[in-house]
Amino acid sequence: MKALVYNGPGLKAVEERPVPQVRDAGDAIVRITKTTICGTDLHILKGDVPSCEPGRILGHEGVGIVESIGAGVTAFAPGDHVLISCITACGRCEYCRRGMQSHCATGGWILGNIIDGTQAEYVRIPHADTSLYAIPEQADEDALVMLSDILPTGFECGVLNGKVAPGSTVAIVGAGPIGLAALLTARLFSPARIIMIDLDETRLAVARRFGASDTINSGTRDAATALIEMTGGRGADTVIEAVGVAATFELCQLLVAAGGTIANVGVHGAKADLHLERLWSHNITITTRLVDTVSTPQLLRMVEAKQLDPEQLVTHHFAMADMMDAYDVFSRAAETKALKVIIEAADPRAAGSPA
Amino acid sequence: MKALVYNGPGLKAVEERPVPQVRDAGDAIVRITKTTICGTDLHILKGDVPSCEPGRILGHEGVGIVESIGAGVTAFAPGDHVLISCITACGRCEYCRRGMQSHCATGGWILGNIIDGTQAEYVRIPHADTSLYAIPEQADEDALVMLSDILPTGFECGVLNGKVAPGSTVAIVGAGPIGLAALLTARLFSPARIIMIDLDETRLAVARRFGASDTINSGTRDAATALIEMTGGRGADTVIEAVGVAATFELCQLLVAAGGTIANVGVHGAKADLHLERLWSHNITITTRLVDTVSTPQLLRMVEAKQLDPEQLVTHHFAMADMMDAYDVFSRAAETKALKVIIEAADPRAAGSPA
Repeated sequence: MKALVYNGPGLKAVEERPVPQVRDAGDAIVRITKTTICGTDLHILKGDVPSCEPGRILGHEGVGIVESIGAGVTAFAPGDHVLISCITACGRCEYCRRGMQSHCATGGWILGNIIDGTQAEYVRIPHADTSLYAIPEQADEDALVMLSDILPTGFECGVLNGKVAPGSTVAIVGAGPIGLAALLTARLFSPARIIMIDLDETRLAVARRFGASDTINSGTRDAATALIEMTGGRGADTVIEAVGVAATFELCQLLVAAGGTIANVGVHGAKADLHLERLWSHNITITTRLVDTVSTPQLLRMVEAKQLDPEQLVTHHFAMADMMDAYDVFSRAAETKALKVIIEAADPRAAGSPA
Repeated sequence: MKALVYNGPGLKAVEERPVPQVRDAGDAIVRITKTTICGTDLHILKGDVPSCEPGRILGHEGVGIVESIGAGVTAFAPGDHVLISCITACGRCEYCRRGMQSHCATGGWILGNIIDGTQAEYVRIPHADTSLYAIPEQADEDALVMLSDILPTGFECGVLNGKVAPGSTVAIVGAGPIGLAALLTARLFSPARIIMIDLDETRLAVARRFGASDTINSGTRDAATALIEMTGGRGADTVIEAVGVAATFELCQLLVAAGGTIANVGVHGAKADLHLERLWSHNITITTRLVDTVSTPQLLRMVEAKQLDPEQLVTHHFAMADMMDAYDVFSRAAETKALKVIIEAADPRAAGSPA
């Protein structure tokens, strides 16, 4: 089968690999119909994720059709249309029972990291019963690919951790795909204002189209001064950090109102300054979280009920044979205006694939 | 009347001052029977609290007898035995209604800071109806003085913000009066272990006497290594920072378990490093809070029911005439083994005071 393989920092290739087989009783083999690329994949390619070793097939998002199952799988059968969660969860360990599947003792974020991932024609999914989700009939596959990672990440790490509430003021720093996913899901709680902050005017225009009440271009204005002014000196009740660098996390500390929350969503590679000399008395909360995907069933219902349209995040489509082009377009997002790119398998019945 | 006056960094004196009078309709004048000194008073004397100007009578803790009231006071009458809260709350502004009295638009921590405080024979308490508490009959006055600030601070900023829970593991960094107040109130939630960390062996011995299951002397062992070992590699579910310097806040980041909370109680004068490169994926929460004293009625009931014995924190007693000695003993705590010092007014009936 064709697969996108990480070959060490800066190196990737589409390679021919054997189709994976069931290895453990809980495994399912899924034929990928659609997958996508995540900012985290670009982090891996920069060499920022040491747990991901050269030779690994990348990708932790996708939808597909169950091809075969291990003896222990009871919730799915071959032919089932499934959503793959970026988090593999055993459902049994202490962390899974506490709703912290991201820290599962034998799972967590392993796909396209510790084990081979979804940017391939087939993928092996361990703990399939608790790591796959049945897809509602007639749901848009592009929308569902957004539910593997990006929507639950924006929702759980940003909106839920940030305690977005009716009538509150929300600031989102970073209008990339994750920041926009946070925006789409923040609206579910009817905040009074959602203020989006980014350097890129194109992304801010998308944010306004997606329902941001205000935008601040931090390249042309001092974002903290602008937001404090906009909020009558109070600041934002929820501040969502969706970039992942020290400077933006430090900006968040200037935006948060007394009694507010800074919800970190960004992947950080370095420490940041925490201004406790100002914040110790401000009754604030700072949260970090790796997505647990506990909200996936809830998000699936909202997509089905047309309360959420995550397919708005999709800007480009590529055939699986063109995965290298998909990476090229995704990694030059400022130029190409890419948000999420969908990679589609050729229809096996048309192409006569080994399936 | 006699009063302890801050005369600029490093300078204090017992001075003769006029007895305060009712100024606003919500005021009560309280004759102090007992007061105490807080670590924050020492911060003021170092010049760390710019809002407190020279000439200010210090003190934000105490119990006493209502002497006179303004026309708007309905909950108290002259002769009532009352507890003074360190937080003055109007009860009407948005922050008070949200339970964030510490940020009250016309109150907050103003006593012994923005207005004259309790280290005097009399004090004026604005918003008396919502800033004083009736004292249960037969309650120990020493115990009640601990309820003006230190107990609600340890409880609200440490234990409640830190989400101490039955069966959990709690680490408290700093075994001073605030750390010990957090320890006493953490026990109310029956955690499996409370691990106390300090440099001072005397204070660690007190912590063990107060119910700490384990202690770590961070002067003789690497505290992080020791705690991680003690907890089988997991870390503590709740970490309470009760010192207020960057080094101890940074230590807390090494102690917290995945999914845990760092509850900051310490007053910080400088920024600290936040190791997001490690913590971004650890599902942790960091909280800061100025005490709101919303828990005071709850704590009063527990003292009345003998579920809490905060008088254990009292190590020394002084007459009001000897306030300078009280400061001397309190500020040399490592030598004197002082925790909280009680300053008592002379009985006015005995001494023939102006009351």
